[in-house]
Amino acid sequence: MLKEALLHIADHPFAFAVGDHELKVRLRMKKGDAIRCSILHGDRYQSEGLESAMEISKVAWDDLYDYFEGVIVSPTKRVRYLFHLTGSDGQHLWYGEKGIAANREGAGFFQFAYIAKQDRFVIPDWVHDGIVYQIFPERFRNGDSSNDSEGTLEWNEPLTDWNVYYGGDLAGIIDKLSYLDELGVNVIFMTPLFASTSNHKYNTTDYYRIDPQFGDIQTAKLLVAEAHRRGMKVIFDAVFNHCGDTFFAFQDVLANGGSSKYADWFFIDEFPVQQQPKVNYETFANNIANMPKLNTSHPEVREYLLNIARYWIEEAGIDGWRLDVANEVDHDFWRAFRKVVKAANPEAVIIGEVWNDSRAWLRGDQFDGVMNYLFKEALIDFFAKQNIGVRSFNSRLTHSRMIYADQANAAMFNLIDSHDTERFITSCAKGGMGWNVGLHTLERMKLAAFFQLTYIGMPMIYYGDEVGMDGENDPYCRKPMVWDESLQNRELFEHYQTIIKLRKSHPELRRGHFETWVEDELRNVYGYIRKWGDEVAGMLINNSPREQEVNVSFFWKADGGTAVELLSGQQINVAGDMTVSLAPYGYMVFK
Amino acid sequence: MLKEALLHIADHPFAFAVGDHELKVRLRMKKGDAIRCSILHGDRYQSEGLESAMEISKVAWDDLYDYFEGVIVSPTKRVRYLFHLTGSDGQHLWYGEKGIAANREGAGFFQFAYIAKQDRFVIPDWVHDGIVYQIFPERFRNGDSSNDSEGTLEWNEPLTDWNVYYGGDLAGIIDKLSYLDELGVNVIFMTPLFASTSNHKYNTTDYYRIDPQFGDIQTAKLLVAEAHRRGMKVIFDAVFNHCGDTFFAFQDVLANGGSSKYADWFFIDEFPVQQQPKVNYETFANNIANMPKLNTSHPEVREYLLNIARYWIEEAGIDGWRLDVANEVDHDFWRAFRKVVKAANPEAVIIGEVWNDSRAWLRGDQFDGVMNYLFKEALIDFFAKQNIGVRSFNSRLTHSRMIYADQANAAMFNLIDSHDTERFITSCAKGGMGWNVGLHTLERMKLAAFFQLTYIGMPMIYYGDEVGMDGENDPYCRKPMVWDESLQNRELFEHYQTIIKLRKSHPELRRGHFETWVEDELRNVYGYIRKWGDEVAGMLINNSPREQEVNVSFFWKADGGTAVELLSGQQINVAGDMTVSLAPYGYMVFK
Repeated sequence: MLKEALLHIADHPFAFAVGDHELKVRLRMKKGDAIRCSILHGDRYQSEGLESAMEISKVAWDDLYDYFEGVIVSPTKRVRYLFHLTGSDGQHLWYGEKGIAANREGAGFFQFAYIAKQDRFVIPDWVHDGIVYQIFPERFRNGDSSNDSEGTLEWNEPLTDWNVYYGGDLAGIIDKLSYLDELGVNVIFMTPLFASTSNHKYNTTDYYRIDPQFGDIQTAKLLVAEAHRRGMKVIFDAVFNHCGDTFFAFQDVLANGGSSKYADWFFIDEFPVQQQPKVNYETFANNIANMPKLNTSHPEVREYLLNIARYWIEEAGIDGWRLDVANEVDHDFWRAFRKVVKAANPEAVIIGEVWNDSRAWLRGDQFDGVMNYLFKEALIDFFAKQNIGVRSFNSRLTHSRMIYADQANAAMFNLIDSHDTERFITSCAKGGMGWNVGLHTLERMKLAAFFQLTYIGMPMIYYGDEVGMDGENDPYCRKPMVWDESLQNRELFEHYQTIIKLRKSHPELRRGHFETWVEDELRNVYGYIRKWGDEVAGMLINNSPREQEVNVSFFWKADGGTAVELLSGQQINVAGDMTVSLAPYGYMVFK
Repeated sequence: MLKEALLHIADHPFAFAVGDHELKVRLRMKKGDAIRCSILHGDRYQSEGLESAMEISKVAWDDLYDYFEGVIVSPTKRVRYLFHLTGSDGQHLWYGEKGIAANREGAGFFQFAYIAKQDRFVIPDWVHDGIVYQIFPERFRNGDSSNDSEGTLEWNEPLTDWNVYYGGDLAGIIDKLSYLDELGVNVIFMTPLFASTSNHKYNTTDYYRIDPQFGDIQTAKLLVAEAHRRGMKVIFDAVFNHCGDTFFAFQDVLANGGSSKYADWFFIDEFPVQQQPKVNYETFANNIANMPKLNTSHPEVREYLLNIARYWIEEAGIDGWRLDVANEVDHDFWRAFRKVVKAANPEAVIIGEVWNDSRAWLRGDQFDGVMNYLFKEALIDFFAKQNIGVRSFNSRLTHSRMIYADQANAAMFNLIDSHDTERFITSCAKGGMGWNVGLHTLERMKLAAFFQLTYIGMPMIYYGDEVGMDGENDPYCRKPMVWDESLQNRELFEHYQTIIKLRKSHPELRRGHFETWVEDELRNVYGYIRKWGDEVAGMLINNSPREQEVNVSFFWKADGGTAVELLSGQQINVAGDMTVSLAPYGYMVFK
């Protein structure tokens, strides 16, 4: 066995509490190295030699590593444990805090000193059932023309520029809640609603006021009430990394310079503040003059922003926050933020915008999940560009799960596109290999959506994706929602409906853990299991333009019997290894 | 190169801020794999292709891995970077967040999104100069016989039991400050002083009162004042995991059961509370009835304990806390604790008692350092038992440093024994190999002390070690301090004095980083460098009973010249590789 590949740390994401007395442990090792892995565990104060033994199982693998997991139950909450590995080469190894050794004495014990309730990573239960719909309010629906600003374009006028308005508003979203209900989503995430001078509203003027182009606090409350009446949750967007230069505090600094009492609310190189020709303060990205960075470690700024977080939960009853540019704000602020939010509503969810490895925020003390761009990138490469195969797809998904605790994986916003990216269907059309350019675009979009809607975590649908809206990067991914049914792709809409219904009617698709089932690199067929208690569903997807016959083992039906393909209703008798035929870009769900 | 061995995460301990614009990055790889490692880095919002290149250096190695480190300077504080490795096999690899690839596009960039001041790991500057002396007050010095309890033993009466008293007190410590000054230490850490029913006082009755056997708050203030006058810091012991069963709140629960307003301050299985025959509440360790575990996530308990932390800093002027059983208290409590302590005195230090891998507490948000038992175990095995050689010794030290940020390594209490272990000299006498039992005991003790006093972090001397006190585990490691000079080992005392003086007169021995210099497994000779700016000291130790000739390269004197052996004053002309002769258990310091 390859010692250099073994990795365990008695801390996130290798050891984390999943109950008051339950510790989940994860071990990484070289792929294929071990045929068996066990754990010896006991109370930390117990004499050595009295430990219990348990076997743990392989739950995932990527290009380089296998991952084993198990749950240690500890009556005293004080856990000491070490691993025993049986190699495929016949070798036996012990692995503990002191290292890798041929005997247990040499390996020593890992210590998870105490399972403290206060440190447990707890996510709201509804998150497991969440299916998210992302709305860019200015472009979703104009429900109240009285709040349109001058120069508002007609809804069907082509979009050709960044700085245009179409009149979308909260009244429009309320009007279309029945549409969202019909689609089947149950969480609405809206990009910022607060008063701002832009159509995207990421440069906030007033955090306490709904932008008049969108409505007012009454409209917001009505939206939340109407959503709640339908069993839908509502998530707002918190832009706390920076504000707009029209924000009162920054205006004060512009007017009064170093003598402003808000001077320390920002990071200003020198006074007077200068916006042109050269910005002399920290901003979002590089020198975006109208987005001054907020000093979130300043006690007054913290208090100001935390009050906003509390206010909208208490006043409007929202169910959580999505946090813009979350990775450029200090961890300390987010820890305080979590306390405030969860105190205001323990069922509120917190989702950070972090495009990369987010483990520093996902230990249970800051966010519940993030906008899962690692997931998105894997789907883009596999379904849209088709420049990676099944093995690499599986590898990247595995990596994206194994760097986090289960709780974080369940609380991910699993997106395939957003207001900040090209639309997924456009990526499909562009393709990545010569042979797939412009071909099977819809099929690949459908297949990706099928995968997204059967994966672990909350699927997040970007408005219009469900009816086939296309668009390159901003501003073209922000076109007005297509409401004319004759212009909507109804086949795609019904596909989303069908798979959402499927997810809703099978708890394992929402709550089950994820395991790879089939990894047929040659045929480009991928299979995966979702398992929750006794409920098991097995999915097969064919990411190729050819019909494919694959050999699969219904290992979870070891006693034979009948499997039902849920989308067709077809029943098959399960006996040992079987050959299953998949249509080009086809997908099946077996139960 | 072995891909499975490569490891970097854009987070502690692989990436951590060391300044407002400085990010230290650390890369782990298979030992011997790379002959060169470089970094491409840039601002996260800069176009790709504009990155700067820099080479980073190998700073350490253990049995399996090499570690490279470098500091990225970022004017914008937003860092994107990836590694380029040149293998000893001629291979070239890129390593970034997306993985290991033959080209940079395939590797992607690691992201350290923003160097936030608030999240920076900052330790008090004096810590770099700290030399700690641990006192078990009941056994150090009886300075005031008026506070002796009935049955107090004579100082020189043999210790034969746990529950005895010798009358040590704060007045005694004050009396002996000049002794400590003479020895050269400048930080005094005392095990608990607060009112308690035991001689060790880890079962606190009253956190606001100095135990009357030790003195009172006036004596404590005088001790701090007298210590400060001599430039010494004073560290108290905070026992916040549990209290004594004599603590008022637990007494109230014993009296009033479930109706006590303190019922939730503890973890009680059921009422009435039962202490015998079976404890029915959580305690320190297993069923230690007189040490009920405190519920540190209860708001009132938190406030109560945090006020204590603040009180003794503000009232008595102490310079920090050592935290008992720190790993069984929730992280959330320690984060609040750090804020309270650093607000009361930004120069206060926080040291946790964690005997194992402590990285979960050492990311800058909780402790500054820990009682470094990983260090102690390595020294026991190498010097006392002599059951590991130079390579393994180096490997374990490397591991114990590479799991932490530089700040934590500088703030460690580097102990070789304590009130909870057998004395080091006793371990030396026992040995571990047949040939070393009872042989060269003093020499090995001196050599270990030399190493301890020239290593990175704060050396911590357990009272009496410096005069050769021996003792098995508790209670025998807690014998009354030997004050009779005729019974003290004065050679050892002078050795401590000499090496402490050496450390004090050479900043690199206090502040310099640590690098391995010589790893002569055959001869059991170990060499290491401490480097701080232009100041470099090279140490050689011979952990064998034979005179050894070793070949060394004074690489930091590449231009030749003269090296001085600081302990003998001997000057040698440096030219290329040289042979140096070391006495049995000898040590040398070259500059």
